[in-house]
Amino acid sequence: VAHVYLSYFSERLDAAKVALEVADELTERNIPCSLVECNSATTPTIHPDDIVVSLGGDGTFLRSARIAHAGNARVLGVSLGRLGFLLHVQPSAVTGSVISALSNTGFLERQALSVSLPTGESYFALNEALVERSGSGRMVRATTFIDEEEYLTYHADAVMVATPTGSTGHNFSAGGPVVDDTVPVLILTPVAPHFTIDRSIVVNDSRQVRIQVETKADVVADGNVIATLSEGDSVRISRATHPVRVVASPDFELIGRLRRGLREGHA
Amino acid sequence: VAHVYLSYFSERLDAAKVALEVADELTERNIPCSLVECNSATTPTIHPDDIVVSLGGDGTFLRSARIAHAGNARVLGVSLGRLGFLLHVQPSAVTGSVISALSNTGFLERQALSVSLPTGESYFALNEALVERSGSGRMVRATTFIDEEEYLTYHADAVMVATPTGSTGHNFSAGGPVVDDTVPVLILTPVAPHFTIDRSIVVNDSRQVRIQVETKADVVADGNVIATLSEGDSVRISRATHPVRVVASPDFELIGRLRRGLREGHA
Amino acid sequence: VAHVYLSYFSERLDAAKVALEVADELTERNIPCSLVECNSATTPTIHPDDIVVSLGGDGTFLRSARIAHAGNARVLGVSLGRLGFLLHVQPSAVTGSVISALSNTGFLERQALSVSLPTGESYFALNEALVERSGSGRMVRATTFIDEEEYLTYHADAVMVATPTGSTGHNFSAGGPVVDDTVPVLILTPVAPHFTIDRSIVVNDSRQVRIQVETKADVVADGNVIATLSEGDSVRISRATHPVRVVASPDFELIGRLRRGLREGHA
Amino acid sequence: VAHVYLSYFSERLDAAKVALEVADELTERNIPCSLVECNSATTPTIHPDDIVVSLGGDGTFLRSARIAHAGNARVLGVSLGRLGFLLHVQPSAVTGSVISALSNTGFLERQALSVSLPTGESYFALNEALVERSGSGRMVRATTFIDEEEYLTYHADAVMVATPTGSTGHNFSAGGPVVDDTVPVLILTPVAPHFTIDRSIVVNDSRQVRIQVETKADVVADGNVIATLSEGDSVRISRATHPVRVVASPDFELIGRLRRGLREGHA
Repeated sequence: VAHVYLSYFSERLDAAKVALEVADELTERNIPCSLVECNSATTPTIHPDDIVVSLGGDGTFLRSARIAHAGNARVLGVSLGRLGFLLHVQPSAVTGSVISALSNTGFLERQALSVSLPTGESYFALNEALVERSGSGRMVRATTFIDEEEYLTYHADAVMVATPTGSTGHNFSAGGPVVDDTVPVLILTPVAPHFTIDRSIVVNDSRQVRIQVETKADVVADGNVIATLSEGDSVRISRATHPVRVVASPDFELIGRLRRGLREGHA
Repeated sequence: VAHVYLSYFSERLDAAKVALEVADELTERNIPCSLVECNSATTPTIHPDDIVVSLGGDGTFLRSARIAHAGNARVLGVSLGRLGFLLHVQPSAVTGSVISALSNTGFLERQALSVSLPTGESYFALNEALVERSGSGRMVRATTFIDEEEYLTYHADAVMVATPTGSTGHNFSAGGPVVDDTVPVLILTPVAPHFTIDRSIVVNDSRQVRIQVETKADVVADGNVIATLSEGDSVRISRATHPVRVVASPDFELIGRLRRGLREGHA
Repeated sequence: VAHVYLSYFSERLDAAKVALEVADELTERNIPCSLVECNSATTPTIHPDDIVVSLGGDGTFLRSARIAHAGNARVLGVSLGRLGFLLHVQPSAVTGSVISALSNTGFLERQALSVSLPTGESYFALNEALVERSGSGRMVRATTFIDEEEYLTYHADAVMVATPTGSTGHNFSAGGPVVDDTVPVLILTPVAPHFTIDRSIVVNDSRQVRIQVETKADVVADGNVIATLSEGDSVRISRATHPVRVVASPDFELIGRLRRGLREGHA
Repeated sequence: VAHVYLSYFSERLDAAKVALEVADELTERNIPCSLVECNSATTPTIHPDDIVVSLGGDGTFLRSARIAHAGNARVLGVSLGRLGFLLHVQPSAVTGSVISALSNTGFLERQALSVSLPTGESYFALNEALVERSGSGRMVRATTFIDEEEYLTYHADAVMVATPTGSTGHNFSAGGPVVDDTVPVLILTPVAPHFTIDRSIVVNDSRQVRIQVETKADVVADGNVIATLSEGDSVRISRATHPVRVVASPDFELIGRLRRGLREGHA
């Protein structure tokens, strides 16, 4: 039987409170559920029929998607707004959405990234992976390869590979294009490159991007530092073997996301 | 039997001379061939087994591709450089390429655009279509729709839809991303937009882009004005029903094109 | 005695109507005044004590400023909004502003450009001068010189020199910086340059910019084509010998102009 | 009598070696000189007639300029190239430049920044000061004020104020304009701003820029973290009370710097 995981950041008491209230309502209806601190080192073992409910903002969603992806389960996003800007979400509305998702097995697929480190480990990212200068006042010097063909060498704040889902995030800030969620591509975008072409390159997601550094650098996946590279090290970024399965919601519609971004940016 | 069309701009005497020499060599080998002025109003009727050989620069290739596409024939590009910067191309090398292409029926597919005008007519474009201010010192005011969902309204020099093949052309100049030739997308890029988001949006090429103008505007396909729009008119741009078939050559390789562009731009 | 010129575009009947009403009110007060069609070929002879009142939008202001500048008179801008988006301006408020300006001789200085053509003629521009491709689908190829030192060669839609006043206009659309009105600079900004540095360069306005073309090109000053260049021709752009004198108004405040631009761009 | 300070990074043994050889040659000529590790916490007391010779790359020059500026002495830059890419500079040529500078008291003035922290302390920067996200995967949220008039609020990797001298550095990477060294301005440039205007604003350097953060942030001056800000804190950035005095050299010529940058960026 499907299990519901209510996922939130441990520091967000507002989200924890909503999670507890929703858990009560689900338990009353005999729907098995648990609370999950999505920023905890240990995450539960998830099965494909389960649902991970993300209660919070973008950061919570990215971590909840990672937990769901590990078990090929679906993730359902409930936006509570940014920390300190709590939206008024009724717990009963959340419970309703969960029940609706349990009875309707529909979902959207969103491609994610697999980020392979020199150690052999692989990490998940839904939005983007960056190879980034380690520390203020430095730049990273990195050469990019597309299917092992040498592309450009950048001297930049960072070099990023984003998914279409991540195209409206850090990629957008760095000047990258907005990309339709259904297009099978990787977007390679430099952040503040010095005296080099600053355009993004959009490649088929059957390709692999390799980023090799000449300098010490951090690897960042969906906003979390996952490794530090030494001179000469490479990171390989490719499409994850399976997509993230997302319970459809208007929050995931591209043009709506752009309009919201514009309103917030210029208010 | 396959026919070879040697295509060039009537004003480029250098290209006409190469065309004549190649025609002589092909005739000696009993390969049927004709000369085609690609900027002429009348173009020959082409069959799928024929080959159109483009002798000139980018402008010649775009027109030759159009002629080939009308008959679903292949196009073979021979770069003679820009006008006044003639490359030293041996006619015998061209003849060799043609003979090789006749015996090897391989080709690359490149998506093209179908540009539908208010009159009901449709035009072909391989690189890009623009809706552009008519005359210096004005701007075009245009609203864009993606599959009839309203997207952004631009006040700009022009609003462009480019193919991946065209991504390294005017789209690149206008700040658009470089896109892998094999990705099935349309790229919507504004040219010098005023106080609006200037990022490109990359959408699945199963979608249709409509551009509706509030002001008089020109429609430009691959560099040629094909229509003038009145206030309220719309242009619809979508993937052409069939792709252009291109005889493979190193000139068509993406990263090579970028490197050449960089060398020319910064020499 | 100071004369008031009420300036408007002949096609804007809304502006002509306001001009007539203001003229009536000024005449009642024995203030000498005339109507001026700012897009007419012939313009009145103006004296330094006179005031040119611009009734219309940005285009009207640029032409009115030119007329005022020729006589070193002051220009007073009254925004009636864009054509078709008439703002509700009370004629009596305009009359009040004019009377106030006649009794208070204060003004702001705004640097303008002198655009020298190969013929030896010089033209005025308040916002910007462009050397621009002549016709759709082409590019202009131009080399820039700063005080006769060779700078970059562009292959672009246009190459522009803007004033700080013009920095929020076409320069902004083309990616150029916003510049404080009181800074003594010229801003050189390419429009959609191909494979070249697309950053603006901001130079001291004691310097002269020369733009030499390798291709046919148009010269455009404040949105009007003033000349056509042949291959090899140069245009020289420098600070005008004297500034434009503008009657201060909140419309001329930089940050306000940006906020208005943002609201219009994103509404 | 004028004293010569030979300044280098302690980690660059190549620079230390050149410094020692130059010191020997100066001592032979009875010119008083000392070695200075420019990254040391303690710096010597400098007098206006002294010369600080920067032996290294850009980082060395920025620190040497700071040391010279504190005593209103001149700084002379000798480029040894980037670490690992040593240029072949003859120590005798350096000695010659020093002797020439001692007998010729000419110099260029380059404006610098004074960065005022909430603690009341002020720091020097020659190129730029940034208010920057503290840590990967976050953004800084900051509101900018120009002479205490509120300008834009950014959600970005960083918000930067650069000098004309710094305009070809990090400012350029972030999309900012190149600015003539002799223009008296501050350049405000956001780094990777989200859904906001990404253009730079160039203001008279008589103005003060204040950056107030809503989030924890680092303050970085010429590449060194000088403070950490808490929510609500402000940094004030204005022109330093006196300029840096630079011994003229072709390395300081704007167009030359751009050409070098292009060659390095695209080689």
